[in-house]
Amino acid sequence: MPELRENLATKRWVIIATERAKRPEEFIKKAEAITHPAYDPKCPFCEGNEAANTGEVLAYRQPGSKVDEKGWHLRVVPNKYPALIEPTGPPAEVKRSKSGIYLRMEGVGKHEVVVESPIHNKTIATMSIDEVERVITAYRDRYLSLDWDPHYKLIIIFRNQGGLAGASQVHPHSQIVAAAIIPYHVRAAIYEAQRYYDELGKCVFCDMIKNEIREQERIVLQNEKFIAFVPYAAMVPYETWIFPLQHETTFADLQPSEIRPLAQILRDVLAKFYHSLGNPAYNYCIRSVPHYSAGEPYYHWYIQILPRITTIAGFEIGSGININVALPEESAKFLREFKVK
Amino acid sequence: MPELRENLATKRWVIIATERAKRPEEFIKKAEAITHPAYDPKCPFCEGNEAANTGEVLAYRQPGSKVDEKGWHLRVVPNKYPALIEPTGPPAEVKRSKSGIYLRMEGVGKHEVVVESPIHNKTIATMSIDEVERVITAYRDRYLSLDWDPHYKLIIIFRNQGGLAGASQVHPHSQIVAAAIIPYHVRAAIYEAQRYYDELGKCVFCDMIKNEIREQERIVLQNEKFIAFVPYAAMVPYETWIFPLQHETTFADLQPSEIRPLAQILRDVLAKFYHSLGNPAYNYCIRSVPHYSAGEPYYHWYIQILPRITTIAGFEIGSGININVALPEESAKFLREFKVK
Repeated sequence: MPELRENLATKRWVIIATERAKRPEEFIKKAEAITHPAYDPKCPFCEGNEAANTGEVLAYRQPGSKVDEKGWHLRVVPNKYPALIEPTGPPAEVKRSKSGIYLRMEGVGKHEVVVESPIHNKTIATMSIDEVERVITAYRDRYLSLDWDPHYKLIIIFRNQGGLAGASQVHPHSQIVAAAIIPYHVRAAIYEAQRYYDELGKCVFCDMIKNEIREQERIVLQNEKFIAFVPYAAMVPYETWIFPLQHETTFADLQPSEIRPLAQILRDVLAKFYHSLGNPAYNYCIRSVPHYSAGEPYYHWYIQILPRITTIAGFEIGSGININVALPEESAKFLREFKVK
Repeated sequence: MPELRENLATKRWVIIATERAKRPEEFIKKAEAITHPAYDPKCPFCEGNEAANTGEVLAYRQPGSKVDEKGWHLRVVPNKYPALIEPTGPPAEVKRSKSGIYLRMEGVGKHEVVVESPIHNKTIATMSIDEVERVITAYRDRYLSLDWDPHYKLIIIFRNQGGLAGASQVHPHSQIVAAAIIPYHVRAAIYEAQRYYDELGKCVFCDMIKNEIREQERIVLQNEKFIAFVPYAAMVPYETWIFPLQHETTFADLQPSEIRPLAQILRDVLAKFYHSLGNPAYNYCIRSVPHYSAGEPYYHWYIQILPRITTIAGFEIGSGININVALPEESAKFLREFKVK
């Protein structure tokens, strides 16, 4: 009998398709040999090619090196093909207008690229903890800066790995988009968390973490500050969530002392993916809340990692119910027990 | 300046990314030569291979031919790897239970395959109108039957074309899933339509149709009974909606006299896709409402066609806002002016 499982936080259902379930091993693809060079003269993000992306927003650099020149460990630059354009007026002046009966709005916002390393053929899974720590630090620095800018209501930090996940550049990078609206989709998840708090006086995510620690069977990794588990109602095979163990409403609450443990668990989870599943494509994003909700007891930021090893199709589009052909408990066991050499 | 556009019916925003916009021609891929044979001995859906899928739910057959044997024009059979399993008890007995703090439910429902043609290498775009009329008739017959079965709350009719759209079989087919729940995602869209009606006393979709006829610029095709247009806030390049011009709440309202005009417009839109864009992968689904909402003035069924020629990535996952790199008015003009020879 297949099983429908509800995502306790968002109230979305998932069909765990036991009749068509695959064993963990069936998702392993032949890892394509990574043949990218350490430096690609045509890559706009490689060290030495800084002229392709000037106007550094942030960089961690070797002493004595200059802005928009060589000698950096990590750079944040404006996206050359931004989805949203920087506002020129004050926040209140983002214009809404009508087109026939429809509503439209100026596409203002920020769109930045975090170039995670000068080395072309690295990825989070193969970086050192020091390198990943820099990536997390950059996320935090940019988040803190954008979160308090009254132009922006929503900040999405995300990473696309592999062409199947929408990455158009091989060079290791993440992206940050700040937008002037909070969309329906994000608001709905926040409302559901509020309703849970209304009823039980507790953070739904804190309750999930406690449940997972009690049951153990969906945990992938845990350290002193963070936990990574496959959610009960995972939407896709090997979906993994990383939470701070301590209740933190927004990503802006990430403490300096937590940066390294977060780098450690993120790197180790992605290294498990990389080595056990054959360098799969994935997206991750940081789910957080707008700054006016900082300190609220009902939301808890997390990183959602979604491997792109299956394809959503017409049923998912029509119903909003995903069909997951992997049993979350089996996926978690497979990842948990896999040792990266 | 990029533009944010709101889907008037669902309130979801889309970024029309003018800064990275592509011309209509840029989406055309080299059409892969269609080398599939008319008959594939290994295909479970080809004529002569009926033993691979027995238990016909419905078939349109040549006189004198027998159930689960040769001689059919179209068959509906149970999916051999069903996402949901047929209920054995009465409707009230679909069991919900707890797993730790989470909610789960028995995966009961129906999962059927509409084998649209005995010929292996056809697709809607290359079928005759008579053939597509049979497909629509089968959708209607099964919808009417499932819609009044109290076990089911939601019926999703959908079609996956091409591997990028999740199709695992080449043979032309659609699928029908009937489920025992109405998910959040579907309910939210219905509520939004109700709110529009509350405020204005009109069907939001009827208003959209009037707006599109007045403005003309997003129309792809129109006949005496149906209209096909690219929605103002199209989520992906070439998204197209097909609506009955007359207000019809649910797909069960489709009149016999409308079957042929629907077949005509669906075939012609998909033929435009096929010939102008190089046989792109796509999903379509019929958006309708549960039977207890039949006759309501606020909802209007339609077919949503989503070409899979771009990839959603981390930003879309995190924000619920799609970035569309095609201008809907340009996409519509391109499709409208393209003549299928």
